[in-house]
Amino acid sequence: MVKTQITAEPGTSQIIIEREFDAPRDLVFRAYTDPELLVQWMGPRDLTMKIEEFDVRDGGKWRYISTDADGNDYGFHGVFHGTPSPDATVQTFEFEGVPGHVALEKLTLEERDGRTHVRTVSSFQSVEDRDGMVASGMERGVRDSDERLEELLARLQND
Amino acid sequence: MVKTQITAEPGTSQIIIEREFDAPRDLVFRAYTDPELLVQWMGPRDLTMKIEEFDVRDGGKWRYISTDADGNDYGFHGVFHGTPSPDATVQTFEFEGVPGHVALEKLTLEERDGRTHVRTVSSFQSVEDRDGMVASGMERGVRDSDERLEELLARLQND
Repeated sequence: MVKTQITAEPGTSQIIIEREFDAPRDLVFRAYTDPELLVQWMGPRDLTMKIEEFDVRDGGKWRYISTDADGNDYGFHGVFHGTPSPDATVQTFEFEGVPGHVALEKLTLEERDGRTHVRTVSSFQSVEDRDGMVASGMERGVRDSDERLEELLARLQND
Repeated sequence: MVKTQITAEPGTSQIIIEREFDAPRDLVFRAYTDPELLVQWMGPRDLTMKIEEFDVRDGGKWRYISTDADGNDYGFHGVFHGTPSPDATVQTFEFEGVPGHVALEKLTLEERDGRTHVRTVSSFQSVEDRDGMVASGMERGVRDSDERLEELLARLQND
């Protein structure tokens, strides 16, 4: 199985996340932009995700809340910048637990022999913000999400 | 006269702009957030600025167009992230001539003995994007803007 690669070069303010999925690009794009699909894979397995708003267009806003087993809520929101497409989806990303710390995310999907290479570059406002995100345990969330996305893409193709 | 300091450390994706103004912090904040004042100082002296939208609140959008002597238009737009305040105003920034290249700007105003220290940190999505902005001649625009802001602040305090 292809694993997720997470890169956070020392001294930079970026996190680069890459993984290949055994699915065509349009289906992967749909899994990222259709809220009914997104809710099935985004986030760690032991949290429940509820999408409050998800307006996939230039200037459109999104917001979702993750709830853990003890009922604690974690809110996230952002704004799409430019029209989302498989070539590039650019959005801001804020965790509401630390207001004022905004990141810019760029998602690109590239098809290679029927498989899709997914690359996300998250640019933070400082090295400290970036290091804080790495220290928050984001890696578990990313790996869980990618495994769940892989399972969802397999289900969607076998249906 | 205090000059503007522009810092772009090699290998990073940031530009840091700093300058002190002989004016109280609230007045400087008003010059940045009241469109009727902003239009009087933002941009190079030989361009005319027209503000299309300027919604100073969390999630609010702004857009302005700069027109040069030959009638060429240059559009810029962005979105405020968080409620703008003298402590921190965070916004995205896009030049419409190169769509998809988004920067995050954080403006902080600090009062020191009746003067105001203004610091803007622009975080780009890559070192290349940052270097492209430096190469675009932004320095002239920044220095012109800061001189014009200094003149405006003096006028507002002498009225």
